[in-house]
Amino acid sequence: MLEPVLLRGEWRHASDPAGTFSPVDPSTREPLEESYPVSGIDDIERACAAALEAVVALRGIPPDRIARFLEDYAARIEAGAEALVDRAARETGLPRNPRLRQVELPRTIDQLRQGAAAARDRSWCRATLDTRHNIRSFYAPLGGPVVVFGPNNFPFAFNSVAGGDFVAAVAAGNPVIGKANTGHPGTTKLLAEEALAAARDCGLPPAIVQLIYRTPPDVGFGLVSHTAIGATGFTGSKSAGLRLKHAADAAGKPIYLEMSSVNPVFVLPGALAERLSSIARELFESCALGAGQFCTRPGVTVIQEDPRSEMFIAEVAALFGRTTPGTLLGGSGVEAIGRGIDELVTHGATIVVGGRAEAGPRYAFANTLLRTSGEAFLENPGALQAEAFGTVNLMVVARDAREMAKIAAALEGGLTGCIYSASTGGDDDAYGVLAPVLRQRVGRLLNDKMPTGVAVSPAMNHGGPYPATGHPGFTAVGIPASLLRFAALHCYDNVRAHRLPPEIGNRNPTGSMWRIIDGEWSQRDVLA
Amino acid sequence: MLEPVLLRGEWRHASDPAGTFSPVDPSTREPLEESYPVSGIDDIERACAAALEAVVALRGIPPDRIARFLEDYAARIEAGAEALVDRAARETGLPRNPRLRQVELPRTIDQLRQGAAAARDRSWCRATLDTRHNIRSFYAPLGGPVVVFGPNNFPFAFNSVAGGDFVAAVAAGNPVIGKANTGHPGTTKLLAEEALAAARDCGLPPAIVQLIYRTPPDVGFGLVSHTAIGATGFTGSKSAGLRLKHAADAAGKPIYLEMSSVNPVFVLPGALAERLSSIARELFESCALGAGQFCTRPGVTVIQEDPRSEMFIAEVAALFGRTTPGTLLGGSGVEAIGRGIDELVTHGATIVVGGRAEAGPRYAFANTLLRTSGEAFLENPGALQAEAFGTVNLMVVARDAREMAKIAAALEGGLTGCIYSASTGGDDDAYGVLAPVLRQRVGRLLNDKMPTGVAVSPAMNHGGPYPATGHPGFTAVGIPASLLRFAALHCYDNVRAHRLPPEIGNRNPTGSMWRIIDGEWSQRDVLA
Repeated sequence: MLEPVLLRGEWRHASDPAGTFSPVDPSTREPLEESYPVSGIDDIERACAAALEAVVALRGIPPDRIARFLEDYAARIEAGAEALVDRAARETGLPRNPRLRQVELPRTIDQLRQGAAAARDRSWCRATLDTRHNIRSFYAPLGGPVVVFGPNNFPFAFNSVAGGDFVAAVAAGNPVIGKANTGHPGTTKLLAEEALAAARDCGLPPAIVQLIYRTPPDVGFGLVSHTAIGATGFTGSKSAGLRLKHAADAAGKPIYLEMSSVNPVFVLPGALAERLSSIARELFESCALGAGQFCTRPGVTVIQEDPRSEMFIAEVAALFGRTTPGTLLGGSGVEAIGRGIDELVTHGATIVVGGRAEAGPRYAFANTLLRTSGEAFLENPGALQAEAFGTVNLMVVARDAREMAKIAAALEGGLTGCIYSASTGGDDDAYGVLAPVLRQRVGRLLNDKMPTGVAVSPAMNHGGPYPATGHPGFTAVGIPASLLRFAALHCYDNVRAHRLPPEIGNRNPTGSMWRIIDGEWSQRDVLA
Repeated sequence: MLEPVLLRGEWRHASDPAGTFSPVDPSTREPLEESYPVSGIDDIERACAAALEAVVALRGIPPDRIARFLEDYAARIEAGAEALVDRAARETGLPRNPRLRQVELPRTIDQLRQGAAAARDRSWCRATLDTRHNIRSFYAPLGGPVVVFGPNNFPFAFNSVAGGDFVAAVAAGNPVIGKANTGHPGTTKLLAEEALAAARDCGLPPAIVQLIYRTPPDVGFGLVSHTAIGATGFTGSKSAGLRLKHAADAAGKPIYLEMSSVNPVFVLPGALAERLSSIARELFESCALGAGQFCTRPGVTVIQEDPRSEMFIAEVAALFGRTTPGTLLGGSGVEAIGRGIDELVTHGATIVVGGRAEAGPRYAFANTLLRTSGEAFLENPGALQAEAFGTVNLMVVARDAREMAKIAAALEGGLTGCIYSASTGGDDDAYGVLAPVLRQRVGRLLNDKMPTGVAVSPAMNHGGPYPATGHPGFTAVGIPASLLRFAALHCYDNVRAHRLPPEIGNRNPTGSMWRIIDGEWSQRDVLA
């Protein structure tokens, strides 16, 4: 019995599926009983056609209704939490508590509610009025659906039909075609059922959310480059992301990618002198969160050679060594960690602790700490940033502050970079050398704080230079900024007043929306 | 005697040039006496290395100094206007007055001054402060130079070292590597001399502006994909733009393209009934501006079949036929117009007036009006949008309002779309059918106004869906919005107060900069 796809508001058989697959329970390595279709080009064409009808229907629907939909959906997720958590735990091996039930699900609900608030508030669309020339512009929906590819590591918060990209796309007024992550298709289906019910309740076109589970690669390329679509949001591996980017770029379709990041943590000597043990614990906990499968997990720690640096490595190694590793999302993850560690070792890193897959039924890999010198790192900076998506960290022992800055300069573009320094100001000279270099390599610069746990803040940047993402000006997390990825700049020049969209009319449509009127941000009306 | 390139603040011989070229006087078809080098990879490497040094130097320079530089440069252009206009007229064949001296040069100076005001004001960088979490972000310079390719049709206002992209890149804090348009290298050199003098006066790193004139294609691809660069701004032909885009995309480097646009004008029956002759004159004048070599020139006019539509065509044809065509920028333009018209005629358009190149010494092509039916247009919409970059317009006679909307739906993504309608409201039903469709195809929707003459307004969108540009969310004209193309989102998470850039510090750095503080746009300080 093959599970249905969701197209044009109907759960229906995939048309001419190119294959089937079943997810695997990571805690037993046993396939689950459900079977899901691999969609071919027919499903893509149907989804795109239905989405274009939804685009037209959405033009007549006020943002308040979209906000109500997001809130209704959030409430349904809250009400259905137990079933969702059960299914997600079974498909991902992630702990029910605190992870799924107490952290990720509330975050997902909060994102939906923040998206609703942004849609209702409308300030996100940056209405700009030049009343002297009667030229007015704002960010409007794309005119085509947003395709969302969700990653394997967040079954709720980055889910293709409930997570951050979904919320941003819908809050900006676009329908979504979700491509489930193949690791948790059942969780995604449960979410899509709630989304569809919420859309029906709120009188939205049901094709505001559609769902397929998997495609052959060429069908995926056809989807992101389809003439009908507005843009794509992708969170996942660099290899898959770059191939999709190539297809989308060639068709002139925007694609927003969140691909990978080494997330370096620099610990300056004064910080170690002050609080070695607490930093060791913070580092370990950040590395081990979600069994190390966070895109912001620290992959490299850079410290300076001195007696304390050896104590620090020893203390981190002890934490890595004595803690049972978490369950990984799948067997390919186990293999990929092994390959990543091999790459590091081949280029001169040595294993301090860990280094091999765990025995037993569940997918797991020993927590692994490696080390190398700053000089060795600078000889092979590319290879020594090899990704190992698990509780794996490479300690790089640099000679001095200048070598630390050189290491920072040799980093690939990443999401985050952290610097720990003495609270007394004793590290400030070293900070002054290092920070300007690191700043250019990352989207988010942190002080005295680990990078995991990406706050859903308007000031967040979950983005950064290529190849962490495909564009350094956009963030995937943080409302309302994340909405701007899924909007087009629409200008109205000399358009008659009664034909203007409410967002750029003389009257402030909400009474409180922020707009730029003749160069000043304001909540006022324009006097006609 | 080969003219020098400008690298690292020095006018020097091109290193190992791959060839030479001389511009041609379009009014005589005679080559001018100056000879310019085609730069090879050595010049690119030198320019990139010098620009990276300038990037570092600029980090220590406050925005006020950049503003002073732009103002100083503007004043120098004003003082040197006669020489600039002489050179530009000789290289482009564009009329000294009003075009170059009274319109384009003042516009260019105004853009520089608007850029200075934006740099000084700083509100463009959208500083966002979340004081509860101490997460702060803003748009910062890219960390690499901006490469600017200027087009042939605006020797000042879109010049690679003085025009809109240059202003936006520099006002956002980036150095520029200018690639002159090969049509007016001498004008560009004169401008670069003034820019360099202004940079020296203001104590900016001289590599804030560098200049090469031409490259072989593969060297150009190497430039836009160079690891050192931050982004590229390109204005020019679709074929060149798409090849550069391919190279930049593959390297993950942002490229902003303004490539081509058919700029449809829809004239509804009530508008013709009301003011046929004045619309005919507006249309002709818009088509003939700059000898039709504007990216916003109307290429297609769509009207409805009725007796007045024939009168309209006759009146437009008379204006086209009795007016001497302007001088074109070059011989390749004459050939391209011929090819474009051939393409239209091959697909069923008929020539109403014009249709061939002018005899005589100067480059010119007869003003050409063509016509076809809506039905024929819908059979070959791609071919009948063939570009003819001159005073050329295709009249499409549609059966009714629904066919007009179908034609709008068949348009390629463009910069602009205009609708003329009766002032009494008699066309409002037809407008209601047409406008939502046309809205999706263009960046700027106009009422009762031709698209040429792009105001430098904060609300302008000189952009639009692919293939008019490479991304629907950015504008090439309009300050401060155009600056955002050349900036990266920088987030500071838990960073200590004394280490924050002034833009996101507790104190408002100018006293008047607009920032988003905890969700509210404000000019206030944050209370520490």
